Amino acid sequence: MLENIHSPRDLDKLSYDQLDQLAREIREVMVTTVSENGGHLASNLGVVELTLALHRVFHMPEDKIVFDVGHQSYVHKLITGRYEQFSTLRTYGGISGFPKRCESEYDCFETGHASTAISAALGLARARDFRKEKYQVLAVVGDGALTGGMCYEALNDAGNSQTRMIVILNDNEMSIAPNVGALSNYLTQLRISCGWQSAKSRIRHLRRIPLIGRPLYRMIHGTKQLLRTAVVRDTGNGFFEALGFEYFGPINGHDLASMEKAFKQAAKTRVPCVLHVLTKKGYGYHQAEDRPEAFHGTPPFYIETGDRIAVPKKPSWGHVMADTLARMCETDARIVALTAAMKLGTGLDHFAERYPGRLIDVGIAEEHAATMAAGLAAGGMRPYFAVYSSFYQRCYDQMIHDVAMQHLPVVFLLDRSGIGGEDGQTHHGLFDFAATLPVPGMTVLAPSCSRELVSMLEWTLKQDGPCVIRYAKSGDELSKIDFSGPFTPGKWEIINEKADTMLFAVGSMVPRALKVCDLLAEKGIPACVVNCSTVKPLDTAFLDSLDGNHSIFTLEEHMLTGGFGLYLTKYCMEHPIPVPRKCFGVEDGFIQHGNHELLMKDAGLDEEQIAETIARIMKEEQLTWLTR
Amino acid sequence: MLENIHSPRDLDKLSYDQLDQLAREIREVMVTTVSENGGHLASNLGVVELTLALHRVFHMPEDKIVFDVGHQSYVHKLITGRYEQFSTLRTYGGISGFPKRCESEYDCFETGHASTAISAALGLARARDFRKEKYQVLAVVGDGALTGGMCYEALNDAGNSQTRMIVILNDNEMSIAPNVGALSNYLTQLRISCGWQSAKSRIRHLRRIPLIGRPLYRMIHGTKQLLRTAVVRDTGNGFFEALGFEYFGPINGHDLASMEKAFKQAAKTRVPCVLHVLTKKGYGYHQAEDRPEAFHGTPPFYIETGDRIAVPKKPSWGHVMADTLARMCETDARIVALTAAMKLGTGLDHFAERYPGRLIDVGIAEEHAATMAAGLAAGGMRPYFAVYSSFYQRCYDQMIHDVAMQHLPVVFLLDRSGIGGEDGQTHHGLFDFAATLPVPGMTVLAPSCSRELVSMLEWTLKQDGPCVIRYAKSGDELSKIDFSGPFTPGKWEIINEKADTMLFAVGSMVPRALKVCDLLAEKGIPACVVNCSTVKPLDTAFLDSLDGNHSIFTLEEHMLTGGFGLYLTKYCMEHPIPVPRKCFGVEDGFIQHGNHELLMKDAGLDEEQIAETIARIMKEEQLTWLTR
Repeated sequence: MLENIHSPRDLDKLSYDQLDQLAREIREVMVTTVSENGGHLASNLGVVELTLALHRVFHMPEDKIVFDVGHQSYVHKLITGRYEQFSTLRTYGGISGFPKRCESEYDCFETGHASTAISAALGLARARDFRKEKYQVLAVVGDGALTGGMCYEALNDAGNSQTRMIVILNDNEMSIAPNVGALSNYLTQLRISCGWQSAKSRIRHLRRIPLIGRPLYRMIHGTKQLLRTAVVRDTGNGFFEALGFEYFGPINGHDLASMEKAFKQAAKTRVPCVLHVLTKKGYGYHQAEDRPEAFHGTPPFYIETGDRIAVPKKPSWGHVMADTLARMCETDARIVALTAAMKLGTGLDHFAERYPGRLIDVGIAEEHAATMAAGLAAGGMRPYFAVYSSFYQRCYDQMIHDVAMQHLPVVFLLDRSGIGGEDGQTHHGLFDFAATLPVPGMTVLAPSCSRELVSMLEWTLKQDGPCVIRYAKSGDELSKIDFSGPFTPGKWEIINEKADTMLFAVGSMVPRALKVCDLLAEKGIPACVVNCSTVKPLDTAFLDSLDGNHSIFTLEEHMLTGGFGLYLTKYCMEHPIPVPRKCFGVEDGFIQHGNHELLMKDAGLDEEQIAETIARIMKEEQLTWLTR
Repeated sequence: MLENIHSPRDLDKLSYDQLDQLAREIREVMVTTVSENGGHLASNLGVVELTLALHRVFHMPEDKIVFDVGHQSYVHKLITGRYEQFSTLRTYGGISGFPKRCESEYDCFETGHASTAISAALGLARARDFRKEKYQVLAVVGDGALTGGMCYEALNDAGNSQTRMIVILNDNEMSIAPNVGALSNYLTQLRISCGWQSAKSRIRHLRRIPLIGRPLYRMIHGTKQLLRTAVVRDTGNGFFEALGFEYFGPINGHDLASMEKAFKQAAKTRVPCVLHVLTKKGYGYHQAEDRPEAFHGTPPFYIETGDRIAVPKKPSWGHVMADTLARMCETDARIVALTAAMKLGTGLDHFAERYPGRLIDVGIAEEHAATMAAGLAAGGMRPYFAVYSSFYQRCYDQMIHDVAMQHLPVVFLLDRSGIGGEDGQTHHGLFDFAATLPVPGMTVLAPSCSRELVSMLEWTLKQDGPCVIRYAKSGDELSKIDFSGPFTPGKWEIINEKADTMLFAVGSMVPRALKVCDLLAEKGIPACVVNCSTVKPLDTAFLDSLDGNHSIFTLEEHMLTGGFGLYLTKYCMEHPIPVPRKCFGVEDGFIQHGNHELLMKDAGLDEEQIAETIARIMKEEQLTWLTR
């Protein structure tokens, strides 16, 4: 049936039975594709009926739907003309795992980072009003994303301006639903069929039901859950109404007919409103229902068992970090680890196993996390905030204003730095040097090997300033190199045989630079690798030892502008040191999604490309020299 | 009496009559000092009693008080041993207008940007609990700052963890207080003396009072006001309680005894709580009471009349921007201006006079502003977001993720770029090139003269991508130069007599570079100025025309790391163009507060220093040349 759905309008003529069949087919296609390509599964399985209902009631592309985070847009893609290409999901050159305006007119706004959708939708809604158009604007937001401050800023602004828009709160934590189940149905009935004002007066009585009182909400823990509770409790003049929104719900997110009824009602409302929809992550595929966290973002897996298809795996640097931090905790009571709703992704689950009381999960709230870390440090603690490099962008101001200006010992552990992979452009970590190198007093480190990460972490306790450690999800190990001694910041080392042609490599580029050296040796060009594990401060003693006989190349998995190469160049210019012959890194342009090695090649950063470029430059120089 | 207050403990022995006298003296000193030095007056006049009450009930420095924004800390400074130095307020080498840890142990956390205090306080409170200490932690937050998403993230986290802390909500908009006055007093009485649970049941009845119902809150407009209303209405299970906080208030913020009673009650509470205090901006100095906006941040003024002391004034570039934008509105219906609670500061009041419906004030919510702007642009509008450069740091991720990745025509107008002045380190705009130059597809402009700003603005409508225009509060005009033609991005011009020694200057440094040329001419070194009004993309045609005969210097009012000079160097390195002999800009270090010219001199950026440095370099080079 799915193959006959070329546009959402093909859904109109289907019966609910046929829609049930379609939902099953969609789930099957998603499970199959993600089992092969990897991707976000649990969230997409949860929104099948929700997405179908949205597309039946609202008419895209005239109406605009913004999917917060965007990784739950697979169903949307399947029914907006991308079924044929769906097998290319997240692959190089294939369709993206996130909404992309270039893919389809049905993708009206691109997302990737959390909590942006209400802001974007409000912008679209205001544009509609300015242009005197009539379309509907919706934001589909998960309950997790609602912990992000942007959502609140946007609700506050929309509620104040009373701009007509609909926020679909996709609440996929079913754990507390039974507690409020009876009430929810009743409330939904009340609000939608009896209209708002009469409902309100009836709800006043409902409040006395002991189940939804204060004790319930005290009982429930977890940032996300607290907020959800607040939401579910929000029957009278509560959270959303305080912010100027009308509230409908909770609505069963797997009951198409109920949702359609609610959406039609909401579509008639002239003021901003929130529809609270309850869905179940992983719905329809029992492996994902049982372990939704494991199937949030998953590598390829066996459909039958749900087990991940074994691939030769490098150690997770997040786990190395977390294990090291836990070990350091044994002798230092000041350590506290922070995450912004990414305990698993950052590896901090390993830390929490041993020190659950020393891990603080603030929810999707990187800004708050950074400033709260500054507060912890000012109070005598040693906070370690583990966060993906691209989400670190969210706390840029807090890093400068709250951490660096007070020179507080907060350590930012930037995971997923460099070119990521299948998640694509919103998830690469290519701006972190540019963000941190200009900041006075910041130490910026990039380990070349997981063992170097361990010694860097140990060093952080011996100093008193802000620090950034940048690393990828995993990396090649430098088994021949000894990192057992204590780490010395601002100290670089040549890690193979010394030569006048020097590759100054950072982090993930160090193992790659070693391979480049081998290739250069084959071409008769002796070259060595300098492991620049401290990016700031530079090893000026090392640099001062260089002269015109040296040819310098820099290698980094980062934008060239604002990167390590230019930072090193600055020092060379100011001293009698030759500037780099060439800086290798990412040129001005966004990197798309796909296999990491293919993306590296696209960026001109695979070892053969680098070796060839260096060989060409050295040859040209020799020629220039000879013809002088 | 004030001169005898050496520490807050000297307040303990004073009677309420004596405290009244002290409050008068504090107001007198503040009015006198700010009338001479300039500064934030209205907010400080409003918190005299509040600060006294805080210091009498709580015992700093053991107890920790974090002042959000921090510009309302004058009273705190006066009674924590800084009365003697207070006349140096905001002057070069004098005491800062913001809390500074280096100034006093009573300043436990530095602030400057809004909405950070609850996060910081939560960090301090958690540190206390980890370390098994007992002190109290307070955050003093204005109702304006509460529109910032960070506050919500912090409340959500604190409410969830139930960490003991006190948030003082300093609500200084008295406009709606009379509406709820009778109720407020009653509520305060109820909550504080009768305890929470009994209060709650009584409040349930109060809800039926028609005054505080839905009609009231519909009546009141303005983002800030909406939120305040939500707060004031928040008597049952509303906003703060949804987030896990206990609520006390509203409390009269000019009644010392009431506040002290409330604070003592709050100090006994074991859970996080909010105390809602009503204060009046400008209280006690009628000029500021009448015109609180004018006395928010003020230059020197005559105390009698409140009139500003006339200083030879350069035109405000914000006004130039706003007037131009308004003129452009006449022929382009797509234009919409955005501000994050800075209508006056950014000059957009001029725009609003003519097009009030086309200015959107989102409150202190830069993140939301940027993404909402992206939504507006995706919906066919042309948004112009005017924001101080240092506050722009707040929407760094949104600029990359929501605006640049979709290549949407959002124009960021960065006011107060470069080295600011008396507000000091949190308010300088020294990171904006570093933030924007690495971002693909971003056009980065810096006008040298207000007339060039006009032509740049006009140009923005002729293109379809994201753009940043960076300028200072005001600047020297280049009266001899013709900017009447249409602006061409990526096109640089020599604006005085051509010479081989070239000063590539950006924005505010262009007029300064002209003076440097004059000084160099006196030293017998002919030099010319290149107005690099487009920083990205570079004028590569211009650069390609250079050769080894040219000596390049770059000048910018920005951090050297991540700045224009290095960005230009990158191109030079990749092409047969000599790299700059020297880049002038801000070296690695935070700039303090004081007179702009003195700060420029400290940074080595006054015209004489630059001319001397250039002359020295040219001479050394000549010597090297001769001795070759």
